[in-house]
Amino acid sequence: MSSTWGNHIKLSIFGGSHTEAIGVVIDGLPAGETIDFDAILCQMARRAPGRDKSSTPRKESDTPHILSGMLDGVLTGAPLAAVIENTNTRSKDYSELKVHPRPGHADYTASVRYKNANDIRGGGHFSGRLTACMVFAGAVCRQLLEKRGVVIGGHVLSVGNVQDERFDPVNVSKEELSGLSLRYFPVRREGVEEAMRQEIESARMAQDSIGGVVECAVVGMPAGIGSPMFGGVENVLSSIIYGVPAVKGVEFGDGFGVATLHGSENNDPYYYDEAGKVKTRTNHAGGILGGITTGMPIVFRTAVKPTPSISQEQDTVDLVTGENAKLSVHGRHDPCIVPRAVPVIESAAAIALLDMMMD
Amino acid sequence: MSSTWGNHIKLSIFGGSHTEAIGVVIDGLPAGETIDFDAILCQMARRAPGRDKSSTPRKESDTPHILSGMLDGVLTGAPLAAVIENTNTRSKDYSELKVHPRPGHADYTASVRYKNANDIRGGGHFSGRLTACMVFAGAVCRQLLEKRGVVIGGHVLSVGNVQDERFDPVNVSKEELSGLSLRYFPVRREGVEEAMRQEIESARMAQDSIGGVVECAVVGMPAGIGSPMFGGVENVLSSIIYGVPAVKGVEFGDGFGVATLHGSENNDPYYYDEAGKVKTRTNHAGGILGGITTGMPIVFRTAVKPTPSISQEQDTVDLVTGENAKLSVHGRHDPCIVPRAVPVIESAAAIALLDMMMD
Amino acid sequence: MSSTWGNHIKLSIFGGSHTEAIGVVIDGLPAGETIDFDAILCQMARRAPGRDKSSTPRKESDTPHILSGMLDGVLTGAPLAAVIENTNTRSKDYSELKVHPRPGHADYTASVRYKNANDIRGGGHFSGRLTACMVFAGAVCRQLLEKRGVVIGGHVLSVGNVQDERFDPVNVSKEELSGLSLRYFPVRREGVEEAMRQEIESARMAQDSIGGVVECAVVGMPAGIGSPMFGGVENVLSSIIYGVPAVKGVEFGDGFGVATLHGSENNDPYYYDEAGKVKTRTNHAGGILGGITTGMPIVFRTAVKPTPSISQEQDTVDLVTGENAKLSVHGRHDPCIVPRAVPVIESAAAIALLDMMMD
Amino acid sequence: MSSTWGNHIKLSIFGGSHTEAIGVVIDGLPAGETIDFDAILCQMARRAPGRDKSSTPRKESDTPHILSGMLDGVLTGAPLAAVIENTNTRSKDYSELKVHPRPGHADYTASVRYKNANDIRGGGHFSGRLTACMVFAGAVCRQLLEKRGVVIGGHVLSVGNVQDERFDPVNVSKEELSGLSLRYFPVRREGVEEAMRQEIESARMAQDSIGGVVECAVVGMPAGIGSPMFGGVENVLSSIIYGVPAVKGVEFGDGFGVATLHGSENNDPYYYDEAGKVKTRTNHAGGILGGITTGMPIVFRTAVKPTPSISQEQDTVDLVTGENAKLSVHGRHDPCIVPRAVPVIESAAAIALLDMMMD
Repeated sequence: MSSTWGNHIKLSIFGGSHTEAIGVVIDGLPAGETIDFDAILCQMARRAPGRDKSSTPRKESDTPHILSGMLDGVLTGAPLAAVIENTNTRSKDYSELKVHPRPGHADYTASVRYKNANDIRGGGHFSGRLTACMVFAGAVCRQLLEKRGVVIGGHVLSVGNVQDERFDPVNVSKEELSGLSLRYFPVRREGVEEAMRQEIESARMAQDSIGGVVECAVVGMPAGIGSPMFGGVENVLSSIIYGVPAVKGVEFGDGFGVATLHGSENNDPYYYDEAGKVKTRTNHAGGILGGITTGMPIVFRTAVKPTPSISQEQDTVDLVTGENAKLSVHGRHDPCIVPRAVPVIESAAAIALLDMMMD
Repeated sequence: MSSTWGNHIKLSIFGGSHTEAIGVVIDGLPAGETIDFDAILCQMARRAPGRDKSSTPRKESDTPHILSGMLDGVLTGAPLAAVIENTNTRSKDYSELKVHPRPGHADYTASVRYKNANDIRGGGHFSGRLTACMVFAGAVCRQLLEKRGVVIGGHVLSVGNVQDERFDPVNVSKEELSGLSLRYFPVRREGVEEAMRQEIESARMAQDSIGGVVECAVVGMPAGIGSPMFGGVENVLSSIIYGVPAVKGVEFGDGFGVATLHGSENNDPYYYDEAGKVKTRTNHAGGILGGITTGMPIVFRTAVKPTPSISQEQDTVDLVTGENAKLSVHGRHDPCIVPRAVPVIESAAAIALLDMMMD
Repeated sequence: MSSTWGNHIKLSIFGGSHTEAIGVVIDGLPAGETIDFDAILCQMARRAPGRDKSSTPRKESDTPHILSGMLDGVLTGAPLAAVIENTNTRSKDYSELKVHPRPGHADYTASVRYKNANDIRGGGHFSGRLTACMVFAGAVCRQLLEKRGVVIGGHVLSVGNVQDERFDPVNVSKEELSGLSLRYFPVRREGVEEAMRQEIESARMAQDSIGGVVECAVVGMPAGIGSPMFGGVENVLSSIIYGVPAVKGVEFGDGFGVATLHGSENNDPYYYDEAGKVKTRTNHAGGILGGITTGMPIVFRTAVKPTPSISQEQDTVDLVTGENAKLSVHGRHDPCIVPRAVPVIESAAAIALLDMMMD
Repeated sequence: MSSTWGNHIKLSIFGGSHTEAIGVVIDGLPAGETIDFDAILCQMARRAPGRDKSSTPRKESDTPHILSGMLDGVLTGAPLAAVIENTNTRSKDYSELKVHPRPGHADYTASVRYKNANDIRGGGHFSGRLTACMVFAGAVCRQLLEKRGVVIGGHVLSVGNVQDERFDPVNVSKEELSGLSLRYFPVRREGVEEAMRQEIESARMAQDSIGGVVECAVVGMPAGIGSPMFGGVENVLSSIIYGVPAVKGVEFGDGFGVATLHGSENNDPYYYDEAGKVKTRTNHAGGILGGITTGMPIVFRTAVKPTPSISQEQDTVDLVTGENAKLSVHGRHDPCIVPRAVPVIESAAAIALLDMMMD
């Protein structure tokens, strides 16, 4: 199944960029838990376009409307359903795409997969707009995790060649993560935001776009969560994170960095901390061994490709005439979606981790 | 579930390093297909230890014994079940591990997860030995893919700092992949195998181990396989590949390399080839857009951490006394599992791709 | 999961009797198929209350509003989402039920299951109103089945002690089923509808309700659909049909009648018909052997209990005081839901059979 | 999937009547629980043929061999795998069945489903022999349920026209169920066993077979287990019970008897018992409302068809010549499998109820 996910917390996401609405149904949430609706809106605002000069000027009404599953702010245990109306859509912009698929987009693959019946307007069901549903679901799950002592946060680790500083995988704190998870453009090192914005602005000026990396950390996960083999934290997290459009890589702990390490460098030695809790002195494992949490912070990074929508003329094909063709993508697009991807990836992680905690 | 996987092809893997046997049940295979048992044995030999000086001298009898699902070499459509006996086990080596968990292994996390009832001998259900089951299943699926024109192959892209050459993501051929998928130590560039073996030998001499990267490619997948969101090729492949112990990163196409690219560089322009087939001139996407195959080669890389079992003394804890402790891991271990990981990752990919093709 | 179902066609149903809306998301429908919206409305009208004197005078606006998944009347392949607003709700009627659970309803079991946070208004997520979602989904699946030559229909086999005639399991035709599946009160034998209406009216006059049996048949299913063991047609059909509130029994073919038969009576002998097709002379098996269709009509019966909402005073408990109590259920209720259950059960069958045909 | 089942407790069953072995993998069992192997053997002996004059004289070696998942009699948390060798097989008896499918068996439907590649010997994967795997899994789950205060038992409610007495759905006790669940031919009323054996003997003398009904009860289930809609106890139980060959009907509580009841008769009034626990005075619901347990005994009945293998000559088709044909089934067959079905259905229920309790 393409648009459902989960074992204990089951998502079903629907909608397209230009359908009447998008939305999500979440089955399996625990009954009786109070949900702070403003905190949901806060997370959705981080993802919503048009709030920051680095993103598209296109504004979307991202207010989720809850149809069921909550009564007086408390989860009833029945499926939680929310819809978000699509109000600011300009369907005429997209008429050409069935004929001339945009390079880097899913136009061509979707037309093959769905026998050309797919809704191409704005990317249809493949649109990044659908991540609003993931952020809604994640904002709910995040609150339930926080009540259980688990805090998730992320930052823009890089945009193009501009690098922020990685998390300290041993000492990253709930306070740091809480702070980051409220910001639109979260970074760790002072001054790096300006350099990143400059990189984004350069791309925009060149009618181009730029990629980057998002790094997330999770503090407070108890040891013993997750399962061996296909039920591991890495499996479950990556199975949902790759559902975020534009993601091309996911790595945990030292990730691809382990390839040049020796075992003596990569192994994290155990010790008892002052409270008598088992910890590791280093955390190359990113808090996961054998698919199961160690109790140390979970750390992972996600590679985000440059937005494929660029104004420069590109080579493509004409699916009607069967000849090669040229295409210029018009419309309002983000030159860099990395900052807006941070709350989405945090949300995906929140859903996955709550799912595993309920095992 | 931890040890089951799949939608159309359903795996259930069981066993531990020192249980009487390990095995796998595969439900959902198509009836009436002839299976070449020798080709299965060939793949299993690539994974089996003790066949090469770079691996552990420990020999394992890796012959799969088929209990059901095949009659006269033809799949019956009923679940295919195979067991592999564990014959060469030395259980006494592992008595200490319940008390002194090995850094980098799942000893500690498993003991928390399973309330200390887990079978610690040889790593139990977390042992790399279980990958023999994945190779068996993958060897079957690989044959079914080949009949459908799909060929999978991989190579050791790096060991420590020694690098092989990446696949050409546009022109990689079935011939190249077929050749690689028969070799124990598959590499692309001449001479690099020797340098890698030297790196491994150096690690062994230092009572240490070393990590690396495996790169795989798949040629012949038709366009239109996979689904948006959580049913994407990246989601499904990573959900099974992270089931291979020691994997800490999976990336597709340019992977983390996309972070420094502009859209104009990363987008793959479409064109019609001489046969009138839609292709892309470059293949930064690794053959996947919107979770769906483009028809171009699928390319992905997997980071493999250094074997955590090293002979050097390491810091750990004593879970009985509650005090810090020292540990020296004895036994026969691979200084580098990257070459043996190649057929395992190819196999995981074969299972996942056949599953998606049957959608 | 409670409110999701399916392997190839995946349902996610949400809402409660008095939430803002109820709805359903259907993932996995084939792209490119034209859907007749009027035919959907026709099926939903059969289930909707207030259209017939035998049912509750409570009117519900049962018009489904499609949010996504269809474009110009054609399925896009993306999840099909529909919502139905709850307009005619009288929430004040239900204030007492958290304290005094209604016998025969899920009030008590839901309060235990959901720690008293469940939405009790109108039965909440347990309300029969949710079957409107199933009818919507079923009406879509039914159309796709009809294009593939499969027709489903049902009738009221009994109300109380008034019996209609069973289907002829060998000769039941598509024409008969098509006719029945358009009627509000479908029966086979002339005159029986009047007697059933009399039985229902008697129950109503006695401030009581009455149960019955629904019989369904499916003509046109090819042989070879379904799987052994847990993937059998009986397993899959019953797993969804028991999701219809008030169902307490499901039987296939001769059902409980097989208990008094000898093998020589119950076995259906094979023969070739004039067209050279394998058929059975009798059809005690109800078209299913070993979980797999024989190509003969599928026949099954469903027992529907009397509506638990009756106006008579009943014994219950006071969950606040911890003492025994009396309860009179007010409001507008069906004295018999069996006629309205027919399209619901037909719909459940349509969803399940399409799911299995897509295997 | 055909031969896998479950959400929290995941079964994967493999093998056929004449394959080298049959077996089952059970993933998700709780770690650290002690298992009594003799109690498993006791349940398997109840199902095994050849132990009673009413069953087939064919003896099967039903000893399960545990390959993994248990260490020193304690569950490790890793998948529990058991195999049972097929020793007493006479493959030559079955050579004719590919050509002349047996009426009432899955020979024909399986050949269509699996393109004639299915293993026909002894019924292959469709053989009742596979229920030995279900009894093994159920015997393990039953022990885990008993530790949690839940006891399951069943009896032969009818054979042909000979009836035993139904359970008292309000007062059935753990003692009664424990006693029944140790017997080969469990009945409630004195003398009825003899009459049933007479009925079976009559069928055998007539080269025929006879059907019957199994009734099961479960005492000790806490209130609040199960979920609305598709996660209900009825859904989950029937989804696994229909996996037992020969089952054609499953009903809960009063089952099809509800069809002639009024609401005032069928509703179970609540009251507080002396211990202050909520109970119902009657139990027409069979312990389930809205899919969720009430805390009262769960009661359900299963219709079992007469064994299709009878020695009388029957009409069939010749799938090679395309002409009608005659068939006499030879071999050693049960004239009635109802007594042997009791432990199988109890086992299916044990698996399903443990799965739901782990939610």
